[in-house]
Amino acid sequence: MFDSLKSELTRRTLLYKAGFGLITVSTFGTIGTILKPTRTLAQAGPAPTKEPSLPPEKKLGWAVVGLGKFATEQIMPSFGECKRSKLVALVSGDRTKAERLAQQYGVNQKNIYNYQNYDTIRDNPEVDVIYIILPNGLHAEYSIRGAQAGKHIMCEKPMANTVEECQAMIAAAKKSDRKLMIAYRAQYEPYNLAAIELAQSGKLGKLKAITSDHGRNLDPKDPADRWRANKKLAGGGSLYDIGIYSLQAARYITGEEPQEISAMSYSTPGDPRFREVEENVNFVLRFPSGVLANCTSSYGYSDTKRLQVFGSDAVLELDPATDYYQHRLIIKRKNSNEEQNIQEKNQFALEMDHLSESIMANKQPKTPGEEGLQDVRLMQLIYEAARTGKTIKV
Amino acid sequence: MFDSLKSELTRRTLLYKAGFGLITVSTFGTIGTILKPTRTLAQAGPAPTKEPSLPPEKKLGWAVVGLGKFATEQIMPSFGECKRSKLVALVSGDRTKAERLAQQYGVNQKNIYNYQNYDTIRDNPEVDVIYIILPNGLHAEYSIRGAQAGKHIMCEKPMANTVEECQAMIAAAKKSDRKLMIAYRAQYEPYNLAAIELAQSGKLGKLKAITSDHGRNLDPKDPADRWRANKKLAGGGSLYDIGIYSLQAARYITGEEPQEISAMSYSTPGDPRFREVEENVNFVLRFPSGVLANCTSSYGYSDTKRLQVFGSDAVLELDPATDYYQHRLIIKRKNSNEEQNIQEKNQFALEMDHLSESIMANKQPKTPGEEGLQDVRLMQLIYEAARTGKTIKV
Amino acid sequence: MFDSLKSELTRRTLLYKAGFGLITVSTFGTIGTILKPTRTLAQAGPAPTKEPSLPPEKKLGWAVVGLGKFATEQIMPSFGECKRSKLVALVSGDRTKAERLAQQYGVNQKNIYNYQNYDTIRDNPEVDVIYIILPNGLHAEYSIRGAQAGKHIMCEKPMANTVEECQAMIAAAKKSDRKLMIAYRAQYEPYNLAAIELAQSGKLGKLKAITSDHGRNLDPKDPADRWRANKKLAGGGSLYDIGIYSLQAARYITGEEPQEISAMSYSTPGDPRFREVEENVNFVLRFPSGVLANCTSSYGYSDTKRLQVFGSDAVLELDPATDYYQHRLIIKRKNSNEEQNIQEKNQFALEMDHLSESIMANKQPKTPGEEGLQDVRLMQLIYEAARTGKTIKV
Amino acid sequence: MFDSLKSELTRRTLLYKAGFGLITVSTFGTIGTILKPTRTLAQAGPAPTKEPSLPPEKKLGWAVVGLGKFATEQIMPSFGECKRSKLVALVSGDRTKAERLAQQYGVNQKNIYNYQNYDTIRDNPEVDVIYIILPNGLHAEYSIRGAQAGKHIMCEKPMANTVEECQAMIAAAKKSDRKLMIAYRAQYEPYNLAAIELAQSGKLGKLKAITSDHGRNLDPKDPADRWRANKKLAGGGSLYDIGIYSLQAARYITGEEPQEISAMSYSTPGDPRFREVEENVNFVLRFPSGVLANCTSSYGYSDTKRLQVFGSDAVLELDPATDYYQHRLIIKRKNSNEEQNIQEKNQFALEMDHLSESIMANKQPKTPGEEGLQDVRLMQLIYEAARTGKTIKV
Repeated sequence: MFDSLKSELTRRTLLYKAGFGLITVSTFGTIGTILKPTRTLAQAGPAPTKEPSLPPEKKLGWAVVGLGKFATEQIMPSFGECKRSKLVALVSGDRTKAERLAQQYGVNQKNIYNYQNYDTIRDNPEVDVIYIILPNGLHAEYSIRGAQAGKHIMCEKPMANTVEECQAMIAAAKKSDRKLMIAYRAQYEPYNLAAIELAQSGKLGKLKAITSDHGRNLDPKDPADRWRANKKLAGGGSLYDIGIYSLQAARYITGEEPQEISAMSYSTPGDPRFREVEENVNFVLRFPSGVLANCTSSYGYSDTKRLQVFGSDAVLELDPATDYYQHRLIIKRKNSNEEQNIQEKNQFALEMDHLSESIMANKQPKTPGEEGLQDVRLMQLIYEAARTGKTIKV
Repeated sequence: MFDSLKSELTRRTLLYKAGFGLITVSTFGTIGTILKPTRTLAQAGPAPTKEPSLPPEKKLGWAVVGLGKFATEQIMPSFGECKRSKLVALVSGDRTKAERLAQQYGVNQKNIYNYQNYDTIRDNPEVDVIYIILPNGLHAEYSIRGAQAGKHIMCEKPMANTVEECQAMIAAAKKSDRKLMIAYRAQYEPYNLAAIELAQSGKLGKLKAITSDHGRNLDPKDPADRWRANKKLAGGGSLYDIGIYSLQAARYITGEEPQEISAMSYSTPGDPRFREVEENVNFVLRFPSGVLANCTSSYGYSDTKRLQVFGSDAVLELDPATDYYQHRLIIKRKNSNEEQNIQEKNQFALEMDHLSESIMANKQPKTPGEEGLQDVRLMQLIYEAARTGKTIKV
Repeated sequence: MFDSLKSELTRRTLLYKAGFGLITVSTFGTIGTILKPTRTLAQAGPAPTKEPSLPPEKKLGWAVVGLGKFATEQIMPSFGECKRSKLVALVSGDRTKAERLAQQYGVNQKNIYNYQNYDTIRDNPEVDVIYIILPNGLHAEYSIRGAQAGKHIMCEKPMANTVEECQAMIAAAKKSDRKLMIAYRAQYEPYNLAAIELAQSGKLGKLKAITSDHGRNLDPKDPADRWRANKKLAGGGSLYDIGIYSLQAARYITGEEPQEISAMSYSTPGDPRFREVEENVNFVLRFPSGVLANCTSSYGYSDTKRLQVFGSDAVLELDPATDYYQHRLIIKRKNSNEEQNIQEKNQFALEMDHLSESIMANKQPKTPGEEGLQDVRLMQLIYEAARTGKTIKV
Repeated sequence: MFDSLKSELTRRTLLYKAGFGLITVSTFGTIGTILKPTRTLAQAGPAPTKEPSLPPEKKLGWAVVGLGKFATEQIMPSFGECKRSKLVALVSGDRTKAERLAQQYGVNQKNIYNYQNYDTIRDNPEVDVIYIILPNGLHAEYSIRGAQAGKHIMCEKPMANTVEECQAMIAAAKKSDRKLMIAYRAQYEPYNLAAIELAQSGKLGKLKAITSDHGRNLDPKDPADRWRANKKLAGGGSLYDIGIYSLQAARYITGEEPQEISAMSYSTPGDPRFREVEENVNFVLRFPSGVLANCTSSYGYSDTKRLQVFGSDAVLELDPATDYYQHRLIIKRKNSNEEQNIQEKNQFALEMDHLSESIMANKQPKTPGEEGLQDVRLMQLIYEAARTGKTIKV
């Protein structure tokens, strides 16, 4: 039987004619091309886009600054799915950890830096981009030192603690003629992009309201959460950490800037987590088109990242809206709820490749420093509105 | 302000005491370790398990045979998430395509083979494992040639067209003292593993019935589907391609082998897709514990991959059950439907690493050739039951 | 303030002009008509259809035979939502219970019958229809006695234990020139009607397969379930009680009669519930159009009533499919799942009014005795297929 | 066969012994009691509670004032499911319509009133309760006239246009020693009751935030919506009509009264619907426990009635929250979403019976006039907060 199959295969022309009569092949050597053996069952999953990856030598080299959980569990593994970006250097205060990770990811040990010799990265031509994944209060310093070292900068959100820091970062990048991008991953994530398209295309009718809720329980037992209770390092409380996603969502869904802001905040008295930073902030934004956005931000309620967009014809629900994977988008109409199944992609890889591509094409990235500055400015106004009990004109 | 922050940071001890009073640090150099800057917002997504990846030089080297859509869109990108496996060689009839992919994935051009010189892979010590991703009718030949070349074999499902081919494959691997594993990805996928655990733990009560439905529209316009209409290359129709997932599910959920099989099949008369292979097969399996499994398989109905397990206390629904990503698991009880959110992982990476780990530890893989043989044997009996209209004792 | 409103209201013309400028009214007396004070917020719920109810004296009078849980909790309250049917008589062996219910529902105490004087109902002109809600094994006797008393008959499903009983029932109704309808409530329920329309309209593409699962745990501690374990009273096991919904669904979705049947059954050895009647039956039906239907029926698994229809373009899921309320209908396409929100209605009221309307218009009801006979005939063949292990041609 | 069954049935003792051996019966006459023929398949649906209905002569008699869509499609059919309430009188400006409905519902034609002779209802001892279903601006007048006629009053929400009207209504009821209840149906609806119980039991952890959104498109072509655009008749815009459900929900979920209120409102310029009443109001409430509630209200977005309760351990979602039927309650935890299936009941019947029961037991109803007054007071403050742009202390 097996032999007879083999002999059959040398007469493949016959076989295919028997199938659909469409293919004529004559040499065994091209079997890989023509047969295209494949599974076509499923659609979902992080299939690469049609555009092929650049070869390694053409990819831009990235240094990651700070080797915490987010860096090691999300960002570093995502370079494997990047088409224009590769990991080439690490910056850490923990030499042992850095060496272990360097070995794992094939990073040259000579490309390991610490916070003292960080500035010498200017002498390393392998490094094109520096990705700052430090506590918020350190973003400005390390971004500015990176730009001064002649490197492009990707900086985690929130951009920095204060408007002044943000302005200094923008100025430093400009002076060095380097790109500065804020890592607003949701603006590169397929479900959020679909939501933006649906909202702005008119498919929901005229937009009337937005609600967005982002919260989680700050965990004082998790070392990764400890610095977040410290105002100097974190800049703010739940709003700076996750409420910023609600603010961002309201802005990118409308494509507008808010005109008015009101807010209330609350922190549980006596809770040691909230001695310096706030627990909850609820805020309302008025946009020029008339859309009113109701947002909540919390360090006290159970994990939530959700967005609703209320149009005159339909309501869009994205829940979870800003998770790493496993989003859900539902369009609710009068007589039906339609869930759209969109192909998940690695938003971190897409985000990093966007900056690499912007550098290659010398274009402004979609979420530059100015975008980060605007959120910091608005968050300060939200705090002011909560403090004064007055609706603030932006 | 920025300067004052910087000076503050040199007095970090103070800052942390202000936060939770738990951490005392005294040198700037360890900031990366201690601060652990990170996002902890979301849980979902393909975070690596705790066990770290092996360094590249300790990973086993894999050759991929056949560069169709499944190989290039699912398997090759997944090596980036493997901890014990790396891609080192390609086998293809299309030299140009192979060279392009080799460059993209950092495969040495000298490690590109074609179907004529495939057997010389025996002389390449970089290659430990060969992954066969060819049409079903070619699985036996290329698996056997690979084993004879001294390499371990991963072979796509279905294992082969016939029981005799399967037996020859097992014999060849045994003779060469190599591992042979069938790529039953669902047995390595977290949602299916959770379903197995739930079913066998008694949490659903006593199992009574299983239903599983797998189907899709065979597309004659898609080159990747053409060979599937050819009996010699495909071995069978929808049952061999996707109904096998229903069969597998019934077996791994019960952990038993069926005792009796009945079946009916139907192919639309005149449909050119079904001149050689069947369109639909519905089959029923009786298991020793009394569970009756109702399965459907189709090349004619809209994309479906679902599984239900009916217990005396609860019904488990997995839909989609065997997709690449974005599974959903719901436990239905009398008064509630509970959806369990399980962290998705790259099932292809898990599957490949399982074989690498089995080789390193010299253990039998969980889905060896014998598992593939059993399915081929059962599928042949399903065809016989459909043909004869009789319930067949296995 | 209140006074000023009151004076305003005498000048309502002005008010409406201020509103939309559409209405001119001049007298206070018509305010109810014109203002149409109402809530229009919600759509769902058992709103009456546009056709108004008949006045009480024109409604047909119904007698309910058997005052168990289904009769008292579902059927009797549903007369309140009927437009053509009213409850006028009760037949029960428990005089006390009957008197209490008669008082509650406004039934004249003289219209209470027992099983001995049941036949004298012929002399009661208030009674037009008799609804038989007794154990299956008593359906034939009481339907025939009812028809012989000159009354139209509604009989619960399954119609009777045997084909011969069904035939005798049809003959008796025919001889008395009375209508005989089987209470297949799903054929009057809006979600199932929508599913039929969707399946037969081609909106799912060409139909390929159906699966339907109906089961529950038979509860020996529930008096209402005890007789169901008795073959003489129940006629059969899970198939007769609830598997019949799976069979019905396959028939009304296709609009065809099955040509072939295969089946397997299983009853847990030693389970006292299944000494006389079967626990599980899985069966497969082949329809002339090529559709294969996979059905399960169980007295052993957790509450389930579901239906899927697999078309070439989409899959329809109805789950629960045949509950009393709270159905869900989802259409699954390649890239979306669309849940359709259909207005629930009282299927019992619709069903009873259908018979009343058929009597008034002297038309055959949609689910006559012949429909019930066909199911009993098919269920007997399902048992035969399970017993013989052979596919049976119908 | 049929005869043999019949003879068997005279030996029923034997049959039951064969079943479970639990029942011994000896006379044919008690068959109805003992057999309890019934369907036990489904749980959902408006099954009556265990407590039986009162006989008609003991039920309280209700008069419905205003025969618009809500009255005729929801309230009047619901009397059929009431256990303590019956419809005995109609008040309408449209005699023809009233006569037709009276005939349909068995209301004595002598019990039809118009708006002129409405006060003579005092002389009708059949009427115990008057249900006011008129435009908001008429609630006060007709409630007060009804109380002065010596009848108990059920009044639709919002209670009235102004605080002064509400106070006058309460005073009138008190003076006549009659009950006054506001028809807050959600407080009698099983899903909302379950949500309250879950929120207040601590099962969600400590409550942190609430969001609630109620909106719909005001339809100027629907006569039932026209008066709602008229400030004198409607009292306010979307807030008075449906935003009140968001306000209510925040109050009954927390069981607290708000301390602070901020708000923004928006009406589309030039939209003729919003010349007199507002389109959208977003408002934030601070409760003593620290809960912040974000609410939206709209006459411009697509049908929505939803509620979320954010606790430290779980988030409860009720969507739709305040529809007539087909509610859904989901509890979202870190790793699961649990939908609870609660038996729907007729909230209108429950609500009306609550007032009847309160009258019979001479107890204060759960939602008395004071409850309605509080909402009107708070809605006025919401308008003030929106107008002034200041957070208002209640």
